[in-house]
Amino acid sequence: MTSSSGPRIAMLSVHTSPLEQPGTGDAGGMNVYVLELSQALARRGAEVEIFTRATSSAQPPVVDVAPGIRVFHVPAGPFEGLDKFDLPGQLCAFTAGVLRAEARRPEGFYDVVHSHYWLSGQAGWLAAERWDVPLVHTMHTMARVKNAALAPGDTPEPAGRVIGEEQVVAAADALVASTREEADDLVTLYDADPDKVTIVPPGVDLDVFCPPAPTDDRAALRARLGLPDGGPVILFAGRVQLLKGPDVLVQALAHLPRDVRLVVLGGASGRPTAVRELEALAYQVGVRDRVLVHPPVAPAQLAQWYRAADVVAVPSHNESFGLVAAEAQACGTPVVAAAVGGLRTVVVDGVSGVLVDGHDPATWARELGALLADDARRTRLAAGARAASTRFGWDEAATSMLDVYAQAAKAHGHRG
Amino acid sequence: MTSSSGPRIAMLSVHTSPLEQPGTGDAGGMNVYVLELSQALARRGAEVEIFTRATSSAQPPVVDVAPGIRVFHVPAGPFEGLDKFDLPGQLCAFTAGVLRAEARRPEGFYDVVHSHYWLSGQAGWLAAERWDVPLVHTMHTMARVKNAALAPGDTPEPAGRVIGEEQVVAAADALVASTREEADDLVTLYDADPDKVTIVPPGVDLDVFCPPAPTDDRAALRARLGLPDGGPVILFAGRVQLLKGPDVLVQALAHLPRDVRLVVLGGASGRPTAVRELEALAYQVGVRDRVLVHPPVAPAQLAQWYRAADVVAVPSHNESFGLVAAEAQACGTPVVAAAVGGLRTVVVDGVSGVLVDGHDPATWARELGALLADDARRTRLAAGARAASTRFGWDEAATSMLDVYAQAAKAHGHRG
Repeated sequence: MTSSSGPRIAMLSVHTSPLEQPGTGDAGGMNVYVLELSQALARRGAEVEIFTRATSSAQPPVVDVAPGIRVFHVPAGPFEGLDKFDLPGQLCAFTAGVLRAEARRPEGFYDVVHSHYWLSGQAGWLAAERWDVPLVHTMHTMARVKNAALAPGDTPEPAGRVIGEEQVVAAADALVASTREEADDLVTLYDADPDKVTIVPPGVDLDVFCPPAPTDDRAALRARLGLPDGGPVILFAGRVQLLKGPDVLVQALAHLPRDVRLVVLGGASGRPTAVRELEALAYQVGVRDRVLVHPPVAPAQLAQWYRAADVVAVPSHNESFGLVAAEAQACGTPVVAAAVGGLRTVVVDGVSGVLVDGHDPATWARELGALLADDARRTRLAAGARAASTRFGWDEAATSMLDVYAQAAKAHGHRG
Repeated sequence: MTSSSGPRIAMLSVHTSPLEQPGTGDAGGMNVYVLELSQALARRGAEVEIFTRATSSAQPPVVDVAPGIRVFHVPAGPFEGLDKFDLPGQLCAFTAGVLRAEARRPEGFYDVVHSHYWLSGQAGWLAAERWDVPLVHTMHTMARVKNAALAPGDTPEPAGRVIGEEQVVAAADALVASTREEADDLVTLYDADPDKVTIVPPGVDLDVFCPPAPTDDRAALRARLGLPDGGPVILFAGRVQLLKGPDVLVQALAHLPRDVRLVVLGGASGRPTAVRELEALAYQVGVRDRVLVHPPVAPAQLAQWYRAADVVAVPSHNESFGLVAAEAQACGTPVVAAAVGGLRTVVVDGVSGVLVDGHDPATWARELGALLADDARRTRLAAGARAASTRFGWDEAATSMLDVYAQAAKAHGHRG
């Protein structure tokens, strides 16, 4: 740990480690968010200690990720076989571990607790109260928002989560939203004090997610990924679960020309059978040979996939931000996204991509087909996509976040 | 609070208040246990502070129940509409409330944490670690035991509870079991260190639960309870839920002479429709007019019902102790109980009552019918029942418990 002048931040991410590969299980955009934000904060002199639940005996208790960033794997329940619904029962164990780590530090070590997702918010609430420091919270997803836009066949989030979220919203000194939509949802659905809510758009690593070199044509890119050249490619990157809507794309594919292919870059989430079910659906609607499922990949390779695709589709039923859309646009690939949540901010309709209302496969096929058939429009959107992506930088996000921490400390001082 | 020489005990009962009427919802024998034990401990000079989750806006934050006993209603989640499955998500909020109460006390206020049921154990684990005091835990019921003897149609307890129980067993400095069976289950099913397990039989308030006065014949007793005199009465006292097996008695009734009646003294638990479903079953098997359902009543009146009955039936699928059986026997009423868990200790087969294997209604009808038809045997068992009940006194329980606390403090000192 370097000596530093910035604040010391206890960053809580109970249910998923920022060191995990996103795109499967419980790991998604939030993991990227926590890690990238921490790195950008550390670059500004902050000391960030990230607490996450240990999920494997192979994880060392403490990992020094980079100067100024340390990850603590807190034992709380068994490494495996604990699903998200059982996690609330582990919050006491987790919080005890966080308090134990702090007790080994000099008194008053942390300046702020920043919690992510409601489970961490519950642990953060207790820890921040114990240490008498401000609690800053980012929701990432909200049960009330998710339940209002549930995918057909998906299970609503339980009342216990809604209650837990309400408490965290009330207890936090500051709430961070990624978009205006998320900020509004916090105020209207969770009765958040508008003065406590700050919009901090997450960033995209623009050094990693950038357009292809002029020498890299699409055929070469596809060859490198082992993807035979041929017709247009639609890319879906994300967890395979109803919330993300990959089934909409599989069904849309049946309405599209036979040379159009769909690449699904992601693993099962929620149910272990999710990928198999998606493949069964593809078989059923007669497009099994046009769907390629590939496990999720690390950022540099993910960027290659974005560049290799003609269009990236994001048919989620809800997204608080929509990191995949932002990353794809940064790579200069137009995005076709559902007009929900943060995607309405990230994707500028007609400029960086296309927003689609609803999840009717025929509508999606029409929008995707029109875009794939119009090379000039795709070229125009690609330029717009790249331009739109410059709005999202982690350095700007970290600067805003440090300001949120400072404001929260002031608010906390007045309260306490 | 009186000044005292005994230990200061933080007694945790998250999910049900000792001030609630047992016999409905989540309130049962454990509520009686916590309150009676606390009273007996206070009589021995201990200061007992009981922490329970606030479930109504009508509850004052602090209730001085008796000299040396105080109940704290800790706000953690909404007063109503939170079912037991949502409680794990409220443990951080609850624990924060307990820690807050302690922080207002002089340093090192509590000598021991005694937690009841696994949810409280999770909170107690964190609190005891923070305060560096021993954790004493009573399980009351165990998921693995319940799941192994599940009533048909009942839902198994979730993995998260099993894990939470294992953690509490491992973390506790001392474990209290009500019976030898429960102690064995702790060791064999939860890998408890046998040296940490102490058997402390709960008590029965023998001043309240005592045989009828010689002047009180059964007809007079029944008249006072508004129960028309007539044929034999079988009493079931407890929560109406599958675990307690009231359906077994309703079905058995169909095999018994038409003058035999069943009184169900209890309210719905688990499902709000539980009582209605039991009544529908009674209608279906043609005994609706022979089943009287009455809401649960306070101890003095409960004793009257025990005395008014010819036999008290306890057909539970599992009981860690079986307080109803012990109370009924103290009133001199023979008990017919399922040969499960603590009931095998409480009911001495052929001496204080009858133990029945399994839950086949025909078997239960045969055993109940034989006993109801044999006045001499019932008189003999009544004397045995009263004798058997003298094994259970709260003063003895409190003395043993103070010893457990002292031993736990010693063990904790060695570990810490």
